[in-house]
Amino acid sequence: MSSVQLHDFDADQLAAFRENITAEFNDLKAKNLKLDLTRGKPSSEQLDFADDLLALPGKGDYKAADGTDVRNYGGLTGIQDIRAIWAELMGIPVEQVLAGDSSSLNIMFDVISWSHTFGNNDSERPWKDEETVKWICPVPGYDRHFSISERFGFEMITVPMNEDGPDVAAVAELVKDPQVKGMWVVPTFSNPTGYSVSEDVAKQLAELETAAPDFRIVWDNAYAVHTLTEEFPEILDIVGIAEAAGNPNRFWAFTSTSKITLAGSGVSFFITSEANRSWYTDIAGIRGIGPNKVNQLAHARYFGDAEGVRAVMRKHAASLAPKFETVLNILETRLGEYGVATWTHPTGGYFISLDVVDGTASRVVELAKEAGIALTGAGSSFPLRQDPNNRNIRLAPSLPPVEELEVAMDGVATCVLLAAAEHYAR
Amino acid sequence: MSSVQLHDFDADQLAAFRENITAEFNDLKAKNLKLDLTRGKPSSEQLDFADDLLALPGKGDYKAADGTDVRNYGGLTGIQDIRAIWAELMGIPVEQVLAGDSSSLNIMFDVISWSHTFGNNDSERPWKDEETVKWICPVPGYDRHFSISERFGFEMITVPMNEDGPDVAAVAELVKDPQVKGMWVVPTFSNPTGYSVSEDVAKQLAELETAAPDFRIVWDNAYAVHTLTEEFPEILDIVGIAEAAGNPNRFWAFTSTSKITLAGSGVSFFITSEANRSWYTDIAGIRGIGPNKVNQLAHARYFGDAEGVRAVMRKHAASLAPKFETVLNILETRLGEYGVATWTHPTGGYFISLDVVDGTASRVVELAKEAGIALTGAGSSFPLRQDPNNRNIRLAPSLPPVEELEVAMDGVATCVLLAAAEHYAR
Repeated sequence: MSSVQLHDFDADQLAAFRENITAEFNDLKAKNLKLDLTRGKPSSEQLDFADDLLALPGKGDYKAADGTDVRNYGGLTGIQDIRAIWAELMGIPVEQVLAGDSSSLNIMFDVISWSHTFGNNDSERPWKDEETVKWICPVPGYDRHFSISERFGFEMITVPMNEDGPDVAAVAELVKDPQVKGMWVVPTFSNPTGYSVSEDVAKQLAELETAAPDFRIVWDNAYAVHTLTEEFPEILDIVGIAEAAGNPNRFWAFTSTSKITLAGSGVSFFITSEANRSWYTDIAGIRGIGPNKVNQLAHARYFGDAEGVRAVMRKHAASLAPKFETVLNILETRLGEYGVATWTHPTGGYFISLDVVDGTASRVVELAKEAGIALTGAGSSFPLRQDPNNRNIRLAPSLPPVEELEVAMDGVATCVLLAAAEHYAR
Repeated sequence: MSSVQLHDFDADQLAAFRENITAEFNDLKAKNLKLDLTRGKPSSEQLDFADDLLALPGKGDYKAADGTDVRNYGGLTGIQDIRAIWAELMGIPVEQVLAGDSSSLNIMFDVISWSHTFGNNDSERPWKDEETVKWICPVPGYDRHFSISERFGFEMITVPMNEDGPDVAAVAELVKDPQVKGMWVVPTFSNPTGYSVSEDVAKQLAELETAAPDFRIVWDNAYAVHTLTEEFPEILDIVGIAEAAGNPNRFWAFTSTSKITLAGSGVSFFITSEANRSWYTDIAGIRGIGPNKVNQLAHARYFGDAEGVRAVMRKHAASLAPKFETVLNILETRLGEYGVATWTHPTGGYFISLDVVDGTASRVVELAKEAGIALTGAGSSFPLRQDPNNRNIRLAPSLPPVEELEVAMDGVATCVLLAAAEHYAR
């Protein structure tokens, strides 16, 4: 860190700095880049890890362990074979785990939609019949979560997402309102900060006294095993924790193989209490006949067991860790001395959360776009895409190869500096 | 046909007949059968036709024709490769065809659910805000359709399903009521009668003046190519017909490969107008990121083209036709002379609709159960499972091997006769 940061520069220093960085920005534009850091998509290299899966389960292989012919109709809960692997991986009873189609987000939408239309198993009335439904949104958070609560017209109330999880004191205050019906949270390597919910915070969330009897926390454990290091995070038995706290139905927990095998054609898992499962399958059984069991068997064959899952995740870590390192190094090298940004240092997941000078995030994204670098829209990690400080940018390092990532991040750093210089020059 | 039918028997004749048939029923019970004619599931032999699919698309094969990596996220409309095959098969533009996950029933539920919550693209308000929503149900019809409209609390109004489709005059009368928001129909080899909607009736349905601007017909073309003969039925371009009639958004049409490849893990298709598609994908894009494209590519590889689909269907016909023949022969041989039943003679699809003596269907099902033969519950082809005449039984010949089917149907015939004899003896 230099002793003089950008906001302490005097007018002459700032003018000189701005001139330099503008020249650098013009050089950047001249490169005519077309780079994309917008979404947390796995790279081709990562998708190749699951190449075997494209030929699985294989001809003549269609019997689940219990003798079910996976090719035919039926089986709302998914097949035992893949559910057992996930139960082992998460250290929970297999009954607790429902295996579905490819997208856990689909199930999140459905349980909210069905609570809205029919009420859930603890509702006094359907949510549609409430005057207002309010929803707690830890920020920064996952844009697709917020899009769902927005679509249903919920009033979204933000709480800070801290290093150990959502600000429980704030949540505890909010849930005294019976109109507050639920909350989003990504408990492990959260999107976009990389923060994880501690066991202590999880217990407090489980114990909360809520005015709404049908309050639910959507526990989207999308990155449960998505380490960037040698170590796997502990997976909390959140349903067990909720049960011990006397609120067994509090959590709708989800995870999936989307970022383990194939992003668009994995297996999703819905993990929740018996009463919640029974409510869900009652309606899911009207919606249809059951999930794609052939894909579930293919996944069971591909992994073999829980250790098979971890083996794949080690390959992902080996592929992703250098990309995260690249981003963090460039941020440190280019921005560290100027005091114009802070960022998270995740040990897992898919994102780095970058906070730039207040009021400049949208300008950074705009400049990057001019230079051919697509960044996620400023504010996208906030409900209604409104970052009250206009400072947060979500970086997704997974998709581009390291060489492209270097060029893109160097460009982003230039944009951060130029936006800051413009800002302080006002 | 004998000249004297069962209801014309005098008391002595009837008593003697009843004694004989009771003895036959007791012999049947003594066999301790465990046979199932309940659901329209494909047999193992049929599922084996798609054995290759279990190893498709195959290692290293993940590029769609347009270069899309099908393994990654994205692609709400499904991949061009499989959509083009279905467009060719159905003689419609590829844009009209959305390819989804395995179950078209899931999409039917969703479009109704979303119309209920949000309103559809022609709604003045969401259906949940209507005092009452009424729904037209041609009967006998598909139980899972009726379960959906029941779940949403719609008032279900029946109209007769005739040999050329729903009774259009009755429908025309009903749609004068703005609370009538929609209608189910299986247009080809309808469940359970095997009847198909004629082009003339289809045009009349398209032309109907409805009081509700957001009225929709769920055109569930589940058996579009499911012939039992050498000939394929003509597939009506229902969206084109609706457009020509000036009501482009009238139909939500569906079909799937469930009974072409693998029942639980096929590809579904949603075929509808541009405005309807755009409404659907807007919400589907909040619900998730897209369908399983790997499975879609696997199916495209498996079929090759539309003729590939027809080639598979010829194999199904060869497997199913003898089963239908078996059922029809036994019905004719055992019941023909007594005038105690009528039944349909489908040339495609999965079901035979059997009408027994009024008031005896539930007794037949009960007797069959006693004898170890599971039949679909009486009334199951009617809304709320209420057959006003208690006479309809849906027979599903596909699953058991022919030998078992013979035993089961012979048993069913015995039960029909015994129930009739009991009835007339009252």
